[in-house]
Formats: sequence, C-alpha cells, structure tokens
Amino acid sequence: MQPPKILAFDADDTLWVNEPIFTKTQERCKSLLEKFVAPGVMEEKLYETEIKNLRLFGYGVKGFMLSMIETAIELSEGKIGGNEIQQVIDMGKEMIEHPINLLPNVKETIEQLKGKYEMMVITKGDLFDQESKIARSGLADYFTKIEIVSEKNVGTYSGVFSRNNIDIKEVLMIGNSLKSDVLPICELGGHAIHIPYHTTWVHETISSHQTNGFVYKELADIGMLPNYLKRLK
Amino acid sequence: MQPPKILAFDADDTLWVNEPIFTKTQERCKSLLEKFVAPGVMEEKLYETEIKNLRLFGYGVKGFMLSMIETAIELSEGKIGGNEIQQVIDMGKEMIEHPINLLPNVKETIEQLKGKYEMMVITKGDLFDQESKIARSGLADYFTKIEIVSEKNVGTYSGVFSRNNIDIKEVLMIGNSLKSDVLPICELGGHAIHIPYHTTWVHETISSHQTNGFVYKELADIGMLPNYLKRLK
Repeated sequence: MQPPKILAFDADDTLWVNEPIFTKTQERCKSLLEKFVAPGVMEEKLYETEIKNLRLFGYGVKGFMLSMIETAIELSEGKIGGNEIQQVIDMGKEMIEHPINLLPNVKETIEQLKGKYEMMVITKGDLFDQESKIARSGLADYFTKIEIVSEKNVGTYSGVFSRNNIDIKEVLMIGNSLKSDVLPICELGGHAIHIPYHTTWVHETISSHQTNGFVYKELADIGMLPNYLKRLK
Repeated sequence: MQPPKILAFDADDTLWVNEPIFTKTQERCKSLLEKFVAPGVMEEKLYETEIKNLRLFGYGVKGFMLSMIETAIELSEGKIGGNEIQQVIDMGKEMIEHPINLLPNVKETIEQLKGKYEMMVITKGDLFDQESKIARSGLADYFTKIEIVSEKNVGTYSGVFSRNNIDIKEVLMIGNSLKSDVLPICELGGHAIHIPYHTTWVHETISSHQTNGFVYKELADIGMLPNYLKRLK
C-alpha cells in the first residue's frame, strides 16, 4: 500500500485493556450465584441474555450490568435478594471507574507517530463510557478526531469517513478485532492492520492474512507500527 | 437577527414525546414499591440516586433503570425480590421500545422547512437509544447532520460546530430546555428559540425573554417557526 495519511485506531483492547475487566466481573458474579447454579451454567446463560438484549441495550457496561442482573434473577428462579443484586450493580460501577491501563508500547508508539500522521480513534460502545475512558487515558490530545459509534460495520465506517471528508484510501485502521476493525475497512477498499489482543505466540515478523477473501496485515504488537509505516515510504 | 442558514433541533421533548415516558414508568415503579415505602418518599430517593449516578451512568434509559433498581433495593431495605426487580427491568425495556410519538406540528413544520434551510439534530443521551429513536421517528432523512452528545454545554456545542465547520452565527438552535438548548448557544454568540414543552398558557405571539443576561425568543409551538423565519428575511 501507499503510505497512509490517517491512522485510525480502535480503542478497547487496542489502546487499553478492556475485555479482562468484563471477564473478571463475570467471575465475581459467578461466585455470587454459586449457591443457585451448577458450574458452567452461568456463562452460557449470561451470554445468551447479552445477545438477546443487544438489540435493546447496545454495547457497554450498563447493558452488561442489566444482563447480569437478569441472568442472576433467572438462574436463581427469583430467589436472589436485593442486597445481592446491589452487589452486582456495585461491580458494574467499579468497572466504569476502573483505571485505564494502556497496553504495552501504546503511549510510546503514539508519541512517536505524532505529527507524522493524522491520528483518530474510532471506537464502539456507550457514548458516556467511551468519552470518559478517552479522557482518562491521557491520549485524547494526540487524536484530531474521536468517533464513537454504536456498531462497527460497513455502514457506520462509511458514515464516519464521509462526514469527515476522509478518502478511505488514505486511511490505515488499526485494531484487535477482525470482525469490527479489519474486515469492514477491507470491504470498503481501505487498509487495516490486525493486532490480536491475546497473542498466543510471539512472532516478530509482520504476516499477511486472508479472511473472507480480504488481505490484511497482522502485527504482534503496536510497537511494531512505526517501523512498518517507515517501510511503506 | 439575520436569517439563519442552519436550523439545529433538540430531539427529546422538542421533536417527540420523552419526559412523560419516564414519568409514567416512575409511577409504575412506585406502585411496585407501595408495600415498602410511604407515599412521596420514592420520587425523592429516585431523584437523589439519579443525581448521584449521573457521573457514572450519564443520561438515558439504561442509567434510569439501574437507578430505579438501586432505589427499590434501598427503600425496601433489600427486601425486594428478584421477580419484582425483573419487573423494573421489563418496564425499562418497554421504555426503550416505546413508539416515537412526534409532537404536534413537528412533521408538517420540518416538511415545510425542507430545502430552505440546512437542518440538523443535536441531542443528548445514550448513543444507542438516540440513534434508535431518530431512525424510528421517520425524520432522519430531513437532517444533514445528527450529533449525539453526552452533555449539552458550551464545550460540547463548540466541539459540534467546530468539527462540522459551522459558524455559530449562522445557526438557530431550537429546543425545549433553557439550560441545555438555549443558554449555552447564547453564551457562544449564537441564536436560540425556546419552545417550552409544557406551555401552561397558550400565547400566540412570539415573546422575548432574558435569562442570565441573554436574550432569546420563545415560541409556544414549533408550528410557528416557519412564519417566524419568514419575517427575518
């Protein structure tokens, strides 16, 4: 590809830790339900409830909290008490206030790329929650544009780029999710880099991948991005 | 003022009914708590909980649901059962799916102004919920820009106009809230029209008002907007 003009970063699990906070809370909620349900049942039911509620709640911590409460009520057959539900709410509040832990090399990489590229964030989720996380990340000033969307698909990306008068051919999107960050961008004719959040093995080289007929690059670590970009010039 | 180029509309309780849906749900929740609390106590506690949670949840139905649940747990001293809490969740889900009822004269007014002005929406609240309401309102195609913000103040308005390259002097903001729709716009040097949602008396003329040292117009009904605009030319 030609060198990009704009680097568009996903945020959750690309710039900072997110998923483990959900997983940890889910574990705590499971302990709370131990007396009501057999091991392994809670995860499945919670997932089912979340998927069912997605249409109404969208993504984010508040929807997750409500789905946890519903799951707890259903699995306990209504026997869960008010005080235990308050504990679930308190867990959710802790998630919202959880400190932002940047992933390794994020700060240094963004600092290094500053001034060389226009940088923006395109993140999915709850508006209030995402704004708070961006503000608390200490990274807001590096980005000229911050776009918070309720879903990441061809339609929403296309809307983001058109309302910002951005030619997708000048964009390189960087994110941890193939489904949300990489494939829709490829489908629109843009370029994307996949940085898997959990790298099961550390490979130092850049690899090319193909999924759904689209070719994209994979980096093991965001710290490799400046060198990758240099080689395009 | 000079005729505006851009009309910026607030949405909840300016284009469609919103507040009464919250009030109705609050009443239903109150009935559910009848056996636990004295009359009048619930409203006060719910309001207190909502204000306390605003910092964490922002505006919107999901935060309202969580605050209702917390209020119910606290006022019942934890005695409220899982099945009753499920009823609160179900009330919240009904709010989210509530049909969009446009306010009188909204559709006709927007239709009449179409093509004569650029029209946009600036609305506050939950991203997912507001997008869904705009889509279901049947009005989306009339607006060239839709901005959903987590708070309406001088800072967020200024961000909206600057990222859209809009000169605030060319904007006329129309909304039902002095605090959110009118005063911040005046403070930025723009123009705003207040259309109170509950008009206690019907006055047919346009009146000028002054609050916090800012002058703005008040219309009793959105249907008066086209004539008001015509007279500016």
